[in-house]
Amino acid sequence: MRIYDIIRKKRDNHELSKAEIEFFVDKYSKGEIPDYQASALLMAIYLNKMNKEETVYLTEAMMNSGDVIDLSEIDGIKVDKHSTGGVGDKTTIALAPLVAACGAPVAKMSGRGLGHTGGTLDKLEAIPGFSIEMEAKKFIDSVNKHKIAVCGQTATIAVADKKMYALRDVTATVDNISLIAASIMCKKLASGANAILLDVKTGDGAFMKTLDDSFELAKAMVDIGNGMNRDTIGMITDMDEPLGFAVGNSLEVIEAIETLKGNGPKDFVNLCETLGAYMLVLAKTADTFEEGVEKIREAISSGSALEKLKVFIENQGGDKRVVDDYSLFPQANLVIPIKAHRSGYISRIEAEEVGVSAMILGAGRETKDDELDLAAGIILNNKVGDYVNEGDTLATMYLNKEEKLESAKERFINAYSIVDEKVEPKKLVYGVVTKDGIKKF
Amino acid sequence: MRIYDIIRKKRDNHELSKAEIEFFVDKYSKGEIPDYQASALLMAIYLNKMNKEETVYLTEAMMNSGDVIDLSEIDGIKVDKHSTGGVGDKTTIALAPLVAACGAPVAKMSGRGLGHTGGTLDKLEAIPGFSIEMEAKKFIDSVNKHKIAVCGQTATIAVADKKMYALRDVTATVDNISLIAASIMCKKLASGANAILLDVKTGDGAFMKTLDDSFELAKAMVDIGNGMNRDTIGMITDMDEPLGFAVGNSLEVIEAIETLKGNGPKDFVNLCETLGAYMLVLAKTADTFEEGVEKIREAISSGSALEKLKVFIENQGGDKRVVDDYSLFPQANLVIPIKAHRSGYISRIEAEEVGVSAMILGAGRETKDDELDLAAGIILNNKVGDYVNEGDTLATMYLNKEEKLESAKERFINAYSIVDEKVEPKKLVYGVVTKDGIKKF
Repeated sequence: MRIYDIIRKKRDNHELSKAEIEFFVDKYSKGEIPDYQASALLMAIYLNKMNKEETVYLTEAMMNSGDVIDLSEIDGIKVDKHSTGGVGDKTTIALAPLVAACGAPVAKMSGRGLGHTGGTLDKLEAIPGFSIEMEAKKFIDSVNKHKIAVCGQTATIAVADKKMYALRDVTATVDNISLIAASIMCKKLASGANAILLDVKTGDGAFMKTLDDSFELAKAMVDIGNGMNRDTIGMITDMDEPLGFAVGNSLEVIEAIETLKGNGPKDFVNLCETLGAYMLVLAKTADTFEEGVEKIREAISSGSALEKLKVFIENQGGDKRVVDDYSLFPQANLVIPIKAHRSGYISRIEAEEVGVSAMILGAGRETKDDELDLAAGIILNNKVGDYVNEGDTLATMYLNKEEKLESAKERFINAYSIVDEKVEPKKLVYGVVTKDGIKKF
Repeated sequence: MRIYDIIRKKRDNHELSKAEIEFFVDKYSKGEIPDYQASALLMAIYLNKMNKEETVYLTEAMMNSGDVIDLSEIDGIKVDKHSTGGVGDKTTIALAPLVAACGAPVAKMSGRGLGHTGGTLDKLEAIPGFSIEMEAKKFIDSVNKHKIAVCGQTATIAVADKKMYALRDVTATVDNISLIAASIMCKKLASGANAILLDVKTGDGAFMKTLDDSFELAKAMVDIGNGMNRDTIGMITDMDEPLGFAVGNSLEVIEAIETLKGNGPKDFVNLCETLGAYMLVLAKTADTFEEGVEKIREAISSGSALEKLKVFIENQGGDKRVVDDYSLFPQANLVIPIKAHRSGYISRIEAEEVGVSAMILGAGRETKDDELDLAAGIILNNKVGDYVNEGDTLATMYLNKEEKLESAKERFINAYSIVDEKVEPKKLVYGVVTKDGIKKF
């Protein structure tokens, strides 16, 4: 087998075989195929696309290019949730204890964020003492005992994906549905879950800007998951405006805690109920979606999820007192209100611009070596559809580096559109994709 | 300007600007753009194509990536002839003295062959003593004095093309009309000619296997030439069966000499008349194609072209006695007749297979480091359409390495189809492409 023939085949728009895809991924990850041949093939894949079968083969080969984690020593059906990411997405921090409190095991491997705000690991590290480093044995024991553990992804997972992503990033071959789907799913599958719930964000602050692209990506990933015998469901949820009100690491953890206390923002509570219910269904802890929602609501109202969060924090070395004393979180020196420049209905809060503002304040990384300011961020006061008066506080900025304020403020204000006519609030869930097909709401 | 944005633009099927194409070629030839980005762009160009303007910009940028030869010290309009190559193509060796004898200056830079048989330079070196190494001054003086000189292409011509061709060769991005046309034309243009005649071969033994592709390539090259203010004409000529009867370096030189003596094969004489006439028109040495043909015929019948050949050989250090004494050429130890296995009309002589047979005998290079056997080759006895009886000699093989005979013979015999029904001879010229359009014959 020769890589030249594989490139030519895809260039001529033919379907690649499982053996050809395995050959490429294996030899490329070992450095036996040079970058210049890989990038030619990736561009041919980008332009001529891959079908469902090719995408599954690619994912499987990438999964097998590194360690594949064995979670079989953990009792029950392990459900993993993956979000394609967005602004203010603190979902895992509330959802993991919620689902664990309902009896489903949560054995989650997570990544760091590169972008507007930190990833789940960065957010968890805002809790003093919390560690995401964990031996495999402790990880498994923790989930068996407490139903919950979150650790960092090892560097030896999906080795081909890391190398290939770096190449795609400099050769304009990122935005292809099959390549994106395979890149996400190979890591999920290598992490050992039995079932997967995908939260595909859509809109301005999401990787997928349009609803059509979002459904297409969800469909591709659901096909891969089911093609590899993992029960997989994909949700399409809004990321046109930020999720909830808090953007920034400590601020988001606090919002997640408030949600477990029953004081969460309406959209975020709704998202946790929806995703949580599907996770319970996938874990066979609930028979129906409705029963799942019921159980998630009970876990909040009874306080069992909040209790689970404390156990989770303590088990990973964190100070569980933060749950009741937010002053234990890293604090910002400067707390600056941002005022509305006119009266009217908020018709738009561009998630991406809000995210960039928070990043400028210190909440996110511009390059992978940047250090985060875990205290920095923004608390919004409104959602799209709300009415504000000129001079009302639109949001509060939290920061430690005063010199960042002006540019963050400028971008933040530009994220808002305020108009005279009444505006409908945003929809939260646009649809669900299962192996039976696509259902749009 | 960033190469990433250029890749993305072509990936999204937009037209690249002159500045963008220049940026790519310049930075790539200097090693400032890595191969993996160049190959992604080349695959995007391959699949999304380039238009006429982009192709001219690419050619010009590639031309400017190395030395651009100045032939202005040579009197008259310098016309260069380029063939896309084929089996038995000894045209330059007859055509250069023919055209020079008619008064048009021939200042030709030529390359070596990689493929079935040697290139023009290899063939000329079959003449004892002949040298293709020449200082620029002597080259110019020779053409001014004798109207004819042929030298090797310098390594510093079209530097980007060499590098890019090597990359295309391993990334399945060779067969794109714009890239092929730019690669050929950048070298022609850098060689300093004022006008260019292109002989685009079509058929089994040619780079372009179909007539449509051949016309398309000719059109692309004619557009480039005229787009860069060089009078350019493209001919589409047959390469389905070998040209003339001789295949192999010495053998082809002898056939070219015989042609100047008035004893050439009908198809080859016809080709020399046609190409020669167009060259004289381009050089403004003839007013019409018909006048050009007349002059070429005169140059043969008067012996002036043969005389010019002697001057040409002598001026470049060769032994001009070869013209009258073929025993001075390198000789083969073994001369083996190949017999027809049945009676009938020859319906097919696959040029590529004949070329490969000659290469096996030693006439061509498989890799660029192979040494040629200048005596080796094949003399055919027939053209398509001829009738042969079983046991008639189809061809004679010339070789020095007996161990090569069997495999060469096997491939050679497979090149022939002999049938019962009468077969029409092959057409030689399929059409001509000028700046006014395409004319099919």
